[in-house]
Amino acid sequence: MDMLWSGWGDPAEAAPLPEPVTGLLRDLLGVEPGAPAPAGPDELSVPASPLTAAARRALADAVGGEAHVRTGAEARIRHTRGKSTPDLLRIRGGDLTDLPAAVVLPDGHEEVLAVLRACAAHGLALVPFGGGTSVVGGLAPEHRGRDRPFVALDLRRMNRLLDLDPVSRTATLQPGLRGPRAEELLAAHGFTLGHFPQSYEWATLGGFAAARSSGQASAGYGRFDEMVLALTLATPEGTLETGRAPRSAAGPDLRQLVLGSEGAFGVITSVTVRLRPLPEVRRYEGWRFASFDAGAAALRRLAQDGPRPTVLRLSDETETLIGLAQPDAIGASLGQESAGCQAVAGYEGTAEDVAHRAGRAAAVLRACGGTPLGEEPGERWARGRYSAPYLRDALLDVGAFAETLETAAFWSRIPALYAAVRDALTGTLTGAGTPPLVMCHISHVYENGASLYFTVVSAQGEDPVAHWAPAKRAANEAILAAGGTISHHHGVGTDHRDAYVREAGPLGIGALRAVKQRLDPAGLLNPGVLLPLDPPLDPPRA
Amino acid sequence: MDMLWSGWGDPAEAAPLPEPVTGLLRDLLGVEPGAPAPAGPDELSVPASPLTAAARRALADAVGGEAHVRTGAEARIRHTRGKSTPDLLRIRGGDLTDLPAAVVLPDGHEEVLAVLRACAAHGLALVPFGGGTSVVGGLAPEHRGRDRPFVALDLRRMNRLLDLDPVSRTATLQPGLRGPRAEELLAAHGFTLGHFPQSYEWATLGGFAAARSSGQASAGYGRFDEMVLALTLATPEGTLETGRAPRSAAGPDLRQLVLGSEGAFGVITSVTVRLRPLPEVRRYEGWRFASFDAGAAALRRLAQDGPRPTVLRLSDETETLIGLAQPDAIGASLGQESAGCQAVAGYEGTAEDVAHRAGRAAAVLRACGGTPLGEEPGERWARGRYSAPYLRDALLDVGAFAETLETAAFWSRIPALYAAVRDALTGTLTGAGTPPLVMCHISHVYENGASLYFTVVSAQGEDPVAHWAPAKRAANEAILAAGGTISHHHGVGTDHRDAYVREAGPLGIGALRAVKQRLDPAGLLNPGVLLPLDPPLDPPRA
Repeated sequence: MDMLWSGWGDPAEAAPLPEPVTGLLRDLLGVEPGAPAPAGPDELSVPASPLTAAARRALADAVGGEAHVRTGAEARIRHTRGKSTPDLLRIRGGDLTDLPAAVVLPDGHEEVLAVLRACAAHGLALVPFGGGTSVVGGLAPEHRGRDRPFVALDLRRMNRLLDLDPVSRTATLQPGLRGPRAEELLAAHGFTLGHFPQSYEWATLGGFAAARSSGQASAGYGRFDEMVLALTLATPEGTLETGRAPRSAAGPDLRQLVLGSEGAFGVITSVTVRLRPLPEVRRYEGWRFASFDAGAAALRRLAQDGPRPTVLRLSDETETLIGLAQPDAIGASLGQESAGCQAVAGYEGTAEDVAHRAGRAAAVLRACGGTPLGEEPGERWARGRYSAPYLRDALLDVGAFAETLETAAFWSRIPALYAAVRDALTGTLTGAGTPPLVMCHISHVYENGASLYFTVVSAQGEDPVAHWAPAKRAANEAILAAGGTISHHHGVGTDHRDAYVREAGPLGIGALRAVKQRLDPAGLLNPGVLLPLDPPLDPPRA
Repeated sequence: MDMLWSGWGDPAEAAPLPEPVTGLLRDLLGVEPGAPAPAGPDELSVPASPLTAAARRALADAVGGEAHVRTGAEARIRHTRGKSTPDLLRIRGGDLTDLPAAVVLPDGHEEVLAVLRACAAHGLALVPFGGGTSVVGGLAPEHRGRDRPFVALDLRRMNRLLDLDPVSRTATLQPGLRGPRAEELLAAHGFTLGHFPQSYEWATLGGFAAARSSGQASAGYGRFDEMVLALTLATPEGTLETGRAPRSAAGPDLRQLVLGSEGAFGVITSVTVRLRPLPEVRRYEGWRFASFDAGAAALRRLAQDGPRPTVLRLSDETETLIGLAQPDAIGASLGQESAGCQAVAGYEGTAEDVAHRAGRAAAVLRACGGTPLGEEPGERWARGRYSAPYLRDALLDVGAFAETLETAAFWSRIPALYAAVRDALTGTLTGAGTPPLVMCHISHVYENGASLYFTVVSAQGEDPVAHWAPAKRAANEAILAAGGTISHHHGVGTDHRDAYVREAGPLGIGALRAVKQRLDPAGLLNPGVLLPLDPPLDPPRA
């Protein structure tokens, strides 16, 4: 099934906002009903594909026939940009400036190599397309004004389990597999990957790798980049294969150069990941802390001294009050006195392991001032864990603006980083006449630091994309100034690129541009994504 | 204190071999007493330094005076090559072809940058020198026949703890700190790094990072590359700083590009590492398994399902029989019937945690056929954990040849990899008339695989360096053919470079060469180490 072209997910899953929320939006944020979204992609005026007949033939030859090269309006609209709020607002508004020339569907590594050759021969750029769930502009290359059409390389046909090694507990998967299908294939052998980001239902294995994804159970299963043991990358210069052992001292870790390369170095055509046994037991508990600082200290204690839950997250006061900690029950707490800060601690594993960890962790959380709320709030979180993007669609429909951004830092910097980003968002949007609600949670913890995930809701105002731009810039500035990284798990794309260039520094960017120059000398892969186009790639040195 | 110039460590720690061992060497391997080592470095004939007066002035200016630029014979001899067995045999034999032109001792990042500028201006190459413990030719650049003298950059003055953040549990350390001094500085704050490779007493933090070191307690504390949170790299093109959060989705992980770069991309001038609390309790136990396969299956079970010991290692039948599992008591088991395979499981942490893990792990080890041997063999291993290199000196002194090599692979490949490397070594050396003892242990375990560490002992024969070369080549071939990595923790250096080029493939090597070209365009850093010189760096593309 294809995702809703103008929003998130399965249209059948969409749900209207509960009354307390629409009331809040109206009374607190001044939200007024906006224009309805266009009824269907067929109402949009779509320019003809700029693909030449020769290029179309070459692409068709590369992927086994015309059937796998699509230039129809709907296919191209469905591969236009990703799922950030500005992306949704633009497509709802009929802005098709980032339309691909064609959608090409290869089946296998060799076909991807052939497509890359065809693109090089016909002056086309190429954007790898997995689930299409980027929220950082990762699917909108800089093609405008450059007279280079681009092809969206949709990897959905590459959706097989290639190999499973139960002794080593590894599996090799194709990049176009979506999260649930991958889990289904692994579950047949008694295993799980344990990677459950919010995009899980739609995003793909290749995208998880390319964007350094991190799932909601990262405390227990690790980040996706920690799960990857080997990769195959198809580049315009040939094939790069890496990963012969879990760990090696044979030079820099080339896997970690491919992970996070966001399609700018090549197309990931297979991923070998570590597996865990399917958990016998899953148990998610709610906890309450008096303040975000107190809750964060408790999370830090567990992250540093254990026992480590599988899921560990903490909403700040505002997010707790609004009820975003449990999207299924949003608004239920409104009107109550301060609910403090709600946390979720989840455990997956054998019955014995879960009982042991949950028991010892509960003692730690109590010692840190936590009040147990039982399993019900935890289960409610688990039920609603993939529904926040649907909620955003509902907010957009009623004229609200809702967007998220995230960062990570070492623990000692977390309080100042939290305050700085909040202040930057609130100050900028309020100054622009759209005072926001800013909510935050910690959803990924490490021994040495944590992530911060912000949700912003405001009125759309007259031009929500234009209103948001300075707020996003201010948040980026605040993150860099407070010592955070520009992204903990969304990636760089085009939206974070300028800030990323400052974070990585000229030699960091220079090293990556040198790699790109070697693997993609014509610069056809995702131009302007991750790495800037201007100034052009470093001139060769004498 | 300086290390013994012609062997390992502190000469006061040297100990002769016990009689059962010398008997074994004579009877089983045909070892005959070799030539005694030269008495002191002053007996070697040392050519004058090729350093020009202008270069010497520039280097002295870079490091605050003549006192920190050394061109005397002894200083240069002490910075010639590393500590592989061929390195020791060559220096004992008076081969000074890899002598540096000077030893330069910078104090701080800015001085390192200044030295790099001076080297560039005066046509000098530069080899970063930490503890000098490389066993893979990492300190022997390809300078011969190239008319480019090189400077050994000894980092011993850069030995400070720069920062410690007890909240984030991180510390920033200078690269010239040796393991014990670093632990002492951290212990004053209640922390440990937990990195204890066999070279621990002499090797440095910068070297651990540059070579992707892995310590004997890696099961509990992780590898060094997993401990590093941030790095500063001084390159001929300026400074690269990386690491603003424990984990990030902001592009490829540049830390993992610096880790393992072996001085070929720049000089690591600071390392920020994660800390753990000093353990309250340390407990090491011996276990016996009937066979290497049975023991490996037990280790795998603990690595995959836990609980994870802090130290976990298993000697094969030969290593167990010879007693190398306990260098302090070598030879004690000789003459016994098969002792099976000895394992060590060690636990460090709080008393409660150690008791819990040791208890549950013991149940797993018993269920896998293990017989507990109590703490005595574990403690004996712990006492002798840094003494194997001294043992090698004693073997060389009596005319034996002893060398080690290591690899890693996914679990399912371990049995075939083990057999292939053993056969390659035994076959080659026996064919050359020096039948060897080949011993092996697993000393690093992961969920998805493990390391194999081989020790080879034979008679020196007439030309031990020449005898060893084909055996080493055969072992490398066997490793690549059986799907292992060419090094799990020793690194690439010059000894593994050709095999590494095959492991990484043309695009992997091409990407790293592109990075080197960007950071070190004149190729002055460790030429020929890690990356090959010939053919020259890729010509720039049009």
